Amino acid sequence: MNDGQNRRAWLKDLIWPAPENTKTPAETAAYELEHFFAGHSGKAEICLEEALGEGYILSQTEMGYTIRGGEAGILFGAYVLIRALTLQEELPAGEQKPYYPLRMLNCWDNMSGDVERGYAGRSLWFEEGKFSYDLGRIRQLGRMLGSVGINTLCLNNVNVHQPAQHMLDDLLGDTARFAALLRPFGVKLMLSIDFSYPMQCGLDTADPLDERVQAWWAEKAKIIWTAIPDLAGFLVKADSEHRPGPNTYGRSHAEGANMLARAIAPYGGKLVWRAFVYNCMQDWRDTKTDRPRAAYDLYMPLDGAFDDNVILQIKHGPFDFQVREPLSPLLLGMKNTAKAIEFQLAQEYTGQQIDLYAMPPMWKEIFAQMGKERVQAIAAVSNLGRDDNWTGHPFAALNLFAYGLYAWNPDSDPEAVIRQWARLSYDLPKEQTEKLVSVLLRSRSVYEKYTATLGLCWMITPNTHYGPNPYGYEFQAWGTYIRADRSAVGIDRTEKGTGYLCQYPEKMQKLYQDPHTCPDELLLFFHRLPYDFIMKDGRSLIQRIYDDHFAGYEEAKEMASILKDLDLPEPDREEMLARMEAQLRNAREWRDIVNTFFYRFCGVPDERGRTIYP
Amino acid sequence: MNDGQNRRAWLKDLIWPAPENTKTPAETAAYELEHFFAGHSGKAEICLEEALGEGYILSQTEMGYTIRGGEAGILFGAYVLIRALTLQEELPAGEQKPYYPLRMLNCWDNMSGDVERGYAGRSLWFEEGKFSYDLGRIRQLGRMLGSVGINTLCLNNVNVHQPAQHMLDDLLGDTARFAALLRPFGVKLMLSIDFSYPMQCGLDTADPLDERVQAWWAEKAKIIWTAIPDLAGFLVKADSEHRPGPNTYGRSHAEGANMLARAIAPYGGKLVWRAFVYNCMQDWRDTKTDRPRAAYDLYMPLDGAFDDNVILQIKHGPFDFQVREPLSPLLLGMKNTAKAIEFQLAQEYTGQQIDLYAMPPMWKEIFAQMGKERVQAIAAVSNLGRDDNWTGHPFAALNLFAYGLYAWNPDSDPEAVIRQWARLSYDLPKEQTEKLVSVLLRSRSVYEKYTATLGLCWMITPNTHYGPNPYGYEFQAWGTYIRADRSAVGIDRTEKGTGYLCQYPEKMQKLYQDPHTCPDELLLFFHRLPYDFIMKDGRSLIQRIYDDHFAGYEEAKEMASILKDLDLPEPDREEMLARMEAQLRNAREWRDIVNTFFYRFCGVPDERGRTIYP
Repeated sequence: MNDGQNRRAWLKDLIWPAPENTKTPAETAAYELEHFFAGHSGKAEICLEEALGEGYILSQTEMGYTIRGGEAGILFGAYVLIRALTLQEELPAGEQKPYYPLRMLNCWDNMSGDVERGYAGRSLWFEEGKFSYDLGRIRQLGRMLGSVGINTLCLNNVNVHQPAQHMLDDLLGDTARFAALLRPFGVKLMLSIDFSYPMQCGLDTADPLDERVQAWWAEKAKIIWTAIPDLAGFLVKADSEHRPGPNTYGRSHAEGANMLARAIAPYGGKLVWRAFVYNCMQDWRDTKTDRPRAAYDLYMPLDGAFDDNVILQIKHGPFDFQVREPLSPLLLGMKNTAKAIEFQLAQEYTGQQIDLYAMPPMWKEIFAQMGKERVQAIAAVSNLGRDDNWTGHPFAALNLFAYGLYAWNPDSDPEAVIRQWARLSYDLPKEQTEKLVSVLLRSRSVYEKYTATLGLCWMITPNTHYGPNPYGYEFQAWGTYIRADRSAVGIDRTEKGTGYLCQYPEKMQKLYQDPHTCPDELLLFFHRLPYDFIMKDGRSLIQRIYDDHFAGYEEAKEMASILKDLDLPEPDREEMLARMEAQLRNAREWRDIVNTFFYRFCGVPDERGRTIYP
Repeated sequence: MNDGQNRRAWLKDLIWPAPENTKTPAETAAYELEHFFAGHSGKAEICLEEALGEGYILSQTEMGYTIRGGEAGILFGAYVLIRALTLQEELPAGEQKPYYPLRMLNCWDNMSGDVERGYAGRSLWFEEGKFSYDLGRIRQLGRMLGSVGINTLCLNNVNVHQPAQHMLDDLLGDTARFAALLRPFGVKLMLSIDFSYPMQCGLDTADPLDERVQAWWAEKAKIIWTAIPDLAGFLVKADSEHRPGPNTYGRSHAEGANMLARAIAPYGGKLVWRAFVYNCMQDWRDTKTDRPRAAYDLYMPLDGAFDDNVILQIKHGPFDFQVREPLSPLLLGMKNTAKAIEFQLAQEYTGQQIDLYAMPPMWKEIFAQMGKERVQAIAAVSNLGRDDNWTGHPFAALNLFAYGLYAWNPDSDPEAVIRQWARLSYDLPKEQTEKLVSVLLRSRSVYEKYTATLGLCWMITPNTHYGPNPYGYEFQAWGTYIRADRSAVGIDRTEKGTGYLCQYPEKMQKLYQDPHTCPDELLLFFHRLPYDFIMKDGRSLIQRIYDDHFAGYEEAKEMASILKDLDLPEPDREEMLARMEAQLRNAREWRDIVNTFFYRFCGVPDERGRTIYP
């Protein structure tokens, strides 16, 4: 594969090769602008102002354009300028700077070349236990990330499998060379590390309070930052799903995180600590333990105990990237700890880059509810892979593009972002662009209707996480139960139940605790209700479940029918149509299996006489 | 690993090394007897009488013993003599000959070294795409098989994966060398072949009616039998679970099988054709299609159409080695076709060599119902692997031992066979031997109680097939449904339902069609019944389900408690105890999950007030 053969996602207009010899973002900016203005009237002048950092100011002059900015800011500004001129949009006025200084993409790439929960082919940079990549493609990747201002790429899976540990020693040189490839695009590396690695290197403990362990990490950090002076930091998944961590030694997560943070502080490194910790060996018989409680219960007592360069990375919901979850209460409750919110572009639970699921509407809701100022950084699990089109479904690239824009500006408008992506990606007539935008805008709500109505999540096939299996996780150890029986479904998470709701600020508690005021989309997340519960609109709960599943499938068909008529270029059109067909098969299974599942429990037929298989 | 380190299963008394230089079974017999009588009083004389074939006559003389027999018969007789003298049992009187001339062990070993559905470690003879084995161990294997008269070993998985196809060409020399290793033990090889292999070798079709295909197989057979003149034949899984087969070309299974049979007939080869063919892409909504019907529907019209050297290999039940199934009606209905009955020693559905499941009681029932004369050959899927003790659970070796004895004499008594195995394997005090025998004798009924009461099978974890998951296969494509709802459970397979029952002889139809006369253990296999159906003993159906699950767990605990007190040698004791602990965990899950599953549907509490989790 080479750059020429690989598709350019939303960078359709950057038809010249990605730069090969630039050393800094400003040099890259100059290169990109020179090539752009070779085919456009006008020219652009760049003006380095270090104080602007990642920010920039675009202005129009008689002769053309001026970009003022810091090193990286100039490049981000240059891409915005090129985009605006390409789309004939207005230039953003005044100083532009990113809302979150740390805008991470977390890649779950294993050195074997597999990507955990990857739906776009194998790793772009690992294969057979080592770095292995197409140079042109990595430069194009840098360009994609730089073009939307994503400034940190965590290279390896948070589940650190052999030999990824060796990126800290034997493979450090290769890692540094890779860092150098992305540096001209304003992108820094981050590494996922294995908390127990000292023990694999001869120490008899990884106890964070042991001086030898502290010294080991300090020495390791010195070596690593000598090789990669701008390394962004470490990402750690500890004491989670069988990963090693400080609990092994009776130490708290603050003690574990701070030890690492101190080792890397001298170099400006950030220690990003994932808060995805819960009991993954739950007994299904145990109705007291409630997985959504886990992170808040564990981390709230540690609020304020973390060092300044620790960032606690918290998934947006309390479970695990389900189609519908309430906001994680930890994001709201923890006031004295630097936090990152974590999204998942990889569509593990949201259609696996087969089914359409555009994420901006979800992010808009999340930021509206949380307040962007609650967190100090942002992360998203990557949806990239070696597929020719980068993301499996050609439209899945939208989520990466949009993530960059939201990380820069959480107040972004979903529709505008989607439209911008559509216009950059495809040269469609205006009314077709609008159709594409409207389909993408509604895609999440359609998927939600037939997979997670009323906040009832986890009705999925175990392990693969694709396709319906309402009782698939019901008797397993993952804490993901729906507890459907002949009378009712759901879990009471109010104070009368598991008490999870009590982790929220009072106003939200009040809203959620009464099933008559709780928003429909979270009704069965917070409540256990009988099938004949009457919803706000007068329908019974079971009728609403049926209706949503019938409607979801019909709406998926509508989306498919609209998309079929778009004049998309090949191979995007063919790829999209094949996936849309699969989505319809999937939606039909979801509709019929979930309806039958509940019908078999409750025995209530559909009011409108539609087919529910017995 | 070498022979010395590997354990000897029931061959505890054959403490001398397996023979290395014998060329024929008779030479092996001489070797074994010489070594045995070096440590025992008396001696044995062997007397070749070709006409006796695999049969033998043992007699006692003044000087010692005489074994008359054909080449292989002498060896089989020698092992029986050694066994009888070791156990101080009477010698079998008169001419002994095997009931089934073809007594096959089907190994699902892939050339990668994996064993499909293997629970005793990796393949004993394959690794990394080639033959790879410990010579001493293969000789000891030959001895184990010879000692119980198993005379045919099919080396490779019926699902023929690359590069196993090359056993017919590039790897033929290695295969012939392997055949030579087992020949001195009276064991011949058989090979699983890929119906489409001609197409992988340059032909553009594998159509059995195409003359080029016929010529290709004829030529291939000539080469193969030149290299291995006593090869027993080919085993074929065709048109089954996505395997290629004659249906691809619009040809019948008789046309497919006969074409191959004709190619190998000149060499006396048998063509064993598996009847495990069904629609594995069933729509769960389709209640007309009923998987147990599949083999009868397909093969009955072909009865009499197969060549003389074709053997149709039929699993004992119509599904797939479930804990409880009725006898396959094809075994009863097909009168003009040579048939083999297929058992599965590998405990895929019967506890995976973790849970105890001694098979002789099941075989006794099957032969009693079928009549041994209905089939002309016998096969069993192997439970062997590279584990030090050969079969994972040290007691799982019983099933291999017993299979050999049943294949020789289907009238064998389960208790006597189990006792013989126990005495050969362990030197326990008599009352402990009897305890072990009694536990093994009941082990199947205990496992059945908590995993498949009333013939309700397939409530298992998909893919792994271990552990409870009552709805695990409910909405999948495998045709394995229980269709539980709030009122009833099971599938009506009578003439009013899917009609499966109509495939049986009239007398059996009459017995099974009325739920009041249908044996309890098959009640929910043939009938769909409400939870309040009253059983023969007055209990309700749901109470019987609860009772069996409570009782099954208690009985598993009893078995564990008895076994714990046996003075078994190490490491067998430790291995057994660890597995017994796992069985109890598993049994508890089965009890609680199945009870809860049905309780949630029907809402009926346990009459005796025992805990059913909500």
